[in-house]
Amino acid sequence: MIEPRLGAGLRDYLPAEAIVRQQMFDTIRSVFELFGFVPLDTPGLELEEILTGGDLNFKMQIFRARLRNEEENLSLRFDLTVPLARVIAQYPNEIKLPFKRYQVGKVWRGEKPQAGRFREFVQFDADIVGSAKMSSDAEIISLMYETMTRLGISEFLIRVNNRKVLNGLPEYVGFDKEQTTEVLRLIDKLNRFGWENIAGEMKDKLGFSEQQLSLLKSFLDFQGDNQTETVKGIKKLMDKSPTAMEGARELEEIIENVRALGVPDEKWTIDLSVARGLGYYTGPVFETVLTNLPTIGSVFSGGRFDDLIARFSTTSIPATGASVGVDRLFVALQKLGLVQTKRTVAQVLVLNFDKESELVCQTIVSQLRRAAIPTNLYLGKEETIKGQLAFAIREEYPVVVLIGSTERERKSAAVRDMRSRTQTEVAQTEIVIKVKEILNL
Amino acid sequence: MIEPRLGAGLRDYLPAEAIVRQQMFDTIRSVFELFGFVPLDTPGLELEEILTGGDLNFKMQIFRARLRNEEENLSLRFDLTVPLARVIAQYPNEIKLPFKRYQVGKVWRGEKPQAGRFREFVQFDADIVGSAKMSSDAEIISLMYETMTRLGISEFLIRVNNRKVLNGLPEYVGFDKEQTTEVLRLIDKLNRFGWENIAGEMKDKLGFSEQQLSLLKSFLDFQGDNQTETVKGIKKLMDKSPTAMEGARELEEIIENVRALGVPDEKWTIDLSVARGLGYYTGPVFETVLTNLPTIGSVFSGGRFDDLIARFSTTSIPATGASVGVDRLFVALQKLGLVQTKRTVAQVLVLNFDKESELVCQTIVSQLRRAAIPTNLYLGKEETIKGQLAFAIREEYPVVVLIGSTERERKSAAVRDMRSRTQTEVAQTEIVIKVKEILNL
Repeated sequence: MIEPRLGAGLRDYLPAEAIVRQQMFDTIRSVFELFGFVPLDTPGLELEEILTGGDLNFKMQIFRARLRNEEENLSLRFDLTVPLARVIAQYPNEIKLPFKRYQVGKVWRGEKPQAGRFREFVQFDADIVGSAKMSSDAEIISLMYETMTRLGISEFLIRVNNRKVLNGLPEYVGFDKEQTTEVLRLIDKLNRFGWENIAGEMKDKLGFSEQQLSLLKSFLDFQGDNQTETVKGIKKLMDKSPTAMEGARELEEIIENVRALGVPDEKWTIDLSVARGLGYYTGPVFETVLTNLPTIGSVFSGGRFDDLIARFSTTSIPATGASVGVDRLFVALQKLGLVQTKRTVAQVLVLNFDKESELVCQTIVSQLRRAAIPTNLYLGKEETIKGQLAFAIREEYPVVVLIGSTERERKSAAVRDMRSRTQTEVAQTEIVIKVKEILNL
Repeated sequence: MIEPRLGAGLRDYLPAEAIVRQQMFDTIRSVFELFGFVPLDTPGLELEEILTGGDLNFKMQIFRARLRNEEENLSLRFDLTVPLARVIAQYPNEIKLPFKRYQVGKVWRGEKPQAGRFREFVQFDADIVGSAKMSSDAEIISLMYETMTRLGISEFLIRVNNRKVLNGLPEYVGFDKEQTTEVLRLIDKLNRFGWENIAGEMKDKLGFSEQQLSLLKSFLDFQGDNQTETVKGIKKLMDKSPTAMEGARELEEIIENVRALGVPDEKWTIDLSVARGLGYYTGPVFETVLTNLPTIGSVFSGGRFDDLIARFSTTSIPATGASVGVDRLFVALQKLGLVQTKRTVAQVLVLNFDKESELVCQTIVSQLRRAAIPTNLYLGKEETIKGQLAFAIREEYPVVVLIGSTERERKSAAVRDMRSRTQTEVAQTEIVIKVKEILNL
């Protein structure tokens, strides 16, 4: 016998969770489609060079996938953005720009297994390809707002920044431009590890002085009274960096557009400490935190990646987008008590006690299904009313239909409302009507 | 620059296909839920011993998946049935039997790449665990019928057999019991390779005589006038094999139940040549062929697997189910011209010619979306009406909203019905009403 178990960092979703998770997917998809995004599907397996960009120092831990006696270097994708960039470059005739696509799928990373971090998880991405306009980035922010709201989450904040503003940091703080990547990487860790820790690392590894640290700290903490005031402040602070000034102007355009799209000011903020870890971002970056559960990190993040597609194409194509970390979000909602588990999708259980009634029961099941009412026949081993009713209660069926010997003779059935615990005898031809009445259909 | 391409046997679904494929998934899921199946999700990565059952002679080519410097032997799953068996054994307290679950997900096999065969493909499975009753198997057949019908396919035939009947072949044909697996494997190839080829192999490899071959052939070809007559015939032919007789009695029960469930006799048949390749089947087996495209093979198959769960558990738990080969089915429907591609999910494109109108346009977009009408703002580079309208036509938008300088001054908008090619000027506050009128909402 082989012990039934999973590898490290992997998890199952049993129905009690899978039913509500499925509803979460449906909601996200309906919002993404409302925003005009169309679906795309690509394989989980990609050629390794596509994923790493041929970078020999590629740092993310990815899973190599191999067949015996085969030469191809395949790996499991670690996100849905790189495959999108490949697709855009690969099908220039089929895909017309601008192109708004969504994709939902599993991705794999060799993360150290820990709470809320998995080695296989689902991402739900929306991206706009072929538009350099800030109205596109605003649309992504609007999408993030609408998605979170429709998921029934009210306590969230979308934090927005611009990599171009951050690229003005070498001038502002006074450090070598080549240290920028490392500085951004540390800033990205600010929320998880706190200022003391990242300041320590900047001192030790990058040789930052107290004065530099204090300048950086005041920059990261900077907040105006509202989005417009924050950008005014950025312009004052960074007026020596043309790149940062361009970033600030982009943020101004985003503000106008996000407001026109009806996103309330209090649900989003411009926050200079948002860096986002991934290397390919070039402009606006976004993340979404749950304000009553900040430790879980961002659940919906993204940014502009104007150079990524050029990895696979001679044409440079701008793009922006964001991704819901569905599994992390699900864990968060569970922690917040916002996930109502459900044991069944069926509304009716038809009990079955004897061979003589079995075919009548099947006919009833078939009638109920034809009336679009999700229905199950009891297929288990319990032979008593008590045993089968206990199953119906545990599996939370709202309605039970049963045929005892009396009902069989009278060609009737008992229809039981499990919530009010009342039972009515009806003719077998009237079952659908009675069930609809109980279910308010 | 890295060439954008895919590994062998892998494929992308661009939106024109992905939109309709998504609808196909939705339809399948809605039928499965109507039948009371609940969703389950398990990882694509499983421990290798789970997948192979520790069988050192495991023959299917599977993808091993490895992280650098890690010891775990993980592989990509090749079906959704083995993971189901693991789950049933792993969570005895959470999962109450009988248990009806559906699962949709990618599976991976090292197939030789060829038309309609992929190395990564989606399966959509429904299984009933914990019921030995033939009413469960009948339910699977009913599910297959209903799913195919709701997918808009009318030219199909569900072929049913019972492994127990086939297990009577050694007595009937007169060969060694130990050759049964190999005989079944060859029978499974009958439709693809034809009788001449498999008879040749039986002669060469198994030493079958002409008389044996002729007995086998007459058995495989045997068909009564209807399901009941076929079973009567089986009982006459196989009366010396108790196993085969039990199989025939099971088929009788299935016939009654399938009829009670309202499946028309002409959409299914009992066919003694159905064997199904997978080793774990123990009783009734099912497959679905498209009668106007038989070469593509079965698109929805399964069977009873009463012993599989015992691989992971000391309790023996019966189970039956079937799986839609979604990608193969999709290829088939394309070949039959039953797939209507679609370029967009949005109903309205709001054009945008100038910076001055951009925010008004965004407000209109937001209003339409709030009215549940999927809408896109034009985000591309075309600056002329002609260019943006050409985009709207190519992407097949039914409605276009545009604001030229006249409309901007009058706080109005032109709403264009792209199908009738008529255009109406309405106040900006009336756009939603006008669009709904055009779309009949």
